[in-house]
Amino acid sequence: MSERINHQWRLVSRPVGLLKDTDFKWTEEAVPALNDGQVLVRTLYLSLDPANRGWTNEGGSYKAEIPLGAVMEGGAVGVVEESKNPNFKVGDNVQGMIGWQEYFISDGTNINKLPVNPALPLTAYMALFGHIGMTAYFGLLDITNPQPGETLVVSTAAGAVGSLVGQIGKIKGCRVVGLAGSDEKCKWITEELGFDAAINYKTENIREALKKACPNGIDVYFENVGGETLDAVLSMINLGARISVCGMISMYNATKPVPGPYNIINILVKRARMQGFIVTDFMPRASEAIAALGQWYAEGKLKYRIDVVEGLKNAPASLNKLFEGANQGKLIIKVG
Amino acid sequence: MSERINHQWRLVSRPVGLLKDTDFKWTEEAVPALNDGQVLVRTLYLSLDPANRGWTNEGGSYKAEIPLGAVMEGGAVGVVEESKNPNFKVGDNVQGMIGWQEYFISDGTNINKLPVNPALPLTAYMALFGHIGMTAYFGLLDITNPQPGETLVVSTAAGAVGSLVGQIGKIKGCRVVGLAGSDEKCKWITEELGFDAAINYKTENIREALKKACPNGIDVYFENVGGETLDAVLSMINLGARISVCGMISMYNATKPVPGPYNIINILVKRARMQGFIVTDFMPRASEAIAALGQWYAEGKLKYRIDVVEGLKNAPASLNKLFEGANQGKLIIKVG
Repeated sequence: MSERINHQWRLVSRPVGLLKDTDFKWTEEAVPALNDGQVLVRTLYLSLDPANRGWTNEGGSYKAEIPLGAVMEGGAVGVVEESKNPNFKVGDNVQGMIGWQEYFISDGTNINKLPVNPALPLTAYMALFGHIGMTAYFGLLDITNPQPGETLVVSTAAGAVGSLVGQIGKIKGCRVVGLAGSDEKCKWITEELGFDAAINYKTENIREALKKACPNGIDVYFENVGGETLDAVLSMINLGARISVCGMISMYNATKPVPGPYNIINILVKRARMQGFIVTDFMPRASEAIAALGQWYAEGKLKYRIDVVEGLKNAPASLNKLFEGANQGKLIIKVG
Repeated sequence: MSERINHQWRLVSRPVGLLKDTDFKWTEEAVPALNDGQVLVRTLYLSLDPANRGWTNEGGSYKAEIPLGAVMEGGAVGVVEESKNPNFKVGDNVQGMIGWQEYFISDGTNINKLPVNPALPLTAYMALFGHIGMTAYFGLLDITNPQPGETLVVSTAAGAVGSLVGQIGKIKGCRVVGLAGSDEKCKWITEELGFDAAINYKTENIREALKKACPNGIDVYFENVGGETLDAVLSMINLGARISVCGMISMYNATKPVPGPYNIINILVKRARMQGFIVTDFMPRASEAIAALGQWYAEGKLKYRIDVVEGLKNAPASLNKLFEGANQGKLIIKVG
């Protein structure tokens, strides 16, 4: 057996603003022999998510910071190449926090075997199931409990999570308004995904456009951006509004303090609720989300699209696409 | 029967910043004869509350703006002077939105009869029961569900609501830290009310003082001020923190937009919840609060103090005391 070489992106400096290639170092090392109980996973697809950026900061965000010198972390799907663990066999597809590298050695506790389903491509486990689908499902339904006839506004509506949130909102009977960063994206979410209205936040005045698109005010907001959009939404919330805070992407790259929303007093005046969440808190209920998402997908009520970039070498530059709005659908690096 | 004269404060201009006497006009009119079903109430005590200020703004706040020319609104306790309503008899004490005036004619639907309890002064219905006690009870317990051992921070801790919130927090087993605006107030809440620590927000650095007073971070925050204090608290919240937004007094008199908290992203990062409420939403459960507050009071676990100003004429200037932190305890105008 020839020796396997593992190429990796390691974090070597704390990024300021957007990521630069020089924040990372492309390294290689030999893959060691497995010990008993271990599994060797070859990375197939790496998921790029806005949250990754926060982990590179001092202090981290949801989770501890990634130490300088360590392999950059990230969720991925891979295939078992060797196994000394009775729970995994060669050829099994698995998902886990594999990181920005070609090979990953697991003790079997931090990877999950994916079901064998020839009808679904592996990337569906990143774009529809997995953390993306769970985030949309629990972040919308558990945090905001949207009711038929209510108006739901979704930021980053053409993104991986936002596009699912809007479609789930439609399934629940809401009027759904999405904000996206191009006319093409706006067209996609209205014409393909069934959103009632879309706002191009790069070319339209967000406040004016929201007023037009939400004649009855805003009952539910799925927050992924922060900044000016949150402020505009807060100025229009109805009594008892719920805001699910999934992300605040406009702030992740900020190099100086960003003021919070001027209209925060409306949380008080409108007796509204604003709540942050992280999908991992809902993992004990993953099967509930997978069942619902799978059924809606089978019924043709949920669509997704993926944006696949070839080659692990492109990971740092590609992550920036998320903050520039340059991706179209779930951003995935094809590694294998 | 000699004709009764009703003196009133009418709102005649929209205040900018603190209230000025010229925003109001002192008027008088004869009290008309009662129709069948009506009750004539003579005002005894008028409650002054921070929320009153918001009602004078264009657009109002929780409730519709007070029209220019109308009698200024406010909760009060009064005594029935005449009655053509079988549910009320002369001498009954009642509570309701009587307004800044000496007499009030009700159809009986917007006033509540107070129980006869010689052991309690009438002002207790303003400082302990009534909307003050309900606000503290439901705003803390329902919105944040504080747990033993958690750290609760209370702003305006020597105020009518805040002082009860802190004491209820102690009853529930929390470490309670209060912010107040003078050394005397800080001494009162720690030595008399049993708060674990107090911070004089006028003389101390809030962030430094909070760090010292909350070595385990902040789990629950009872928000009455907004602005810098909210920001400092957000920088220290623990995972799963709850913020009950009762008021944002620092913003009520603002004459230009006030930026929101720079640390609002911690709502996301700490999976925290921030929720506004208004006490009237809880009125169907008033008896639950009254029973609990009454029992704790009887057991000596709840104390309150009142700051009584003599004379309805002093109402506008006295309301400003709340924003200057010049009151000591529940601010009440003695009218009768």
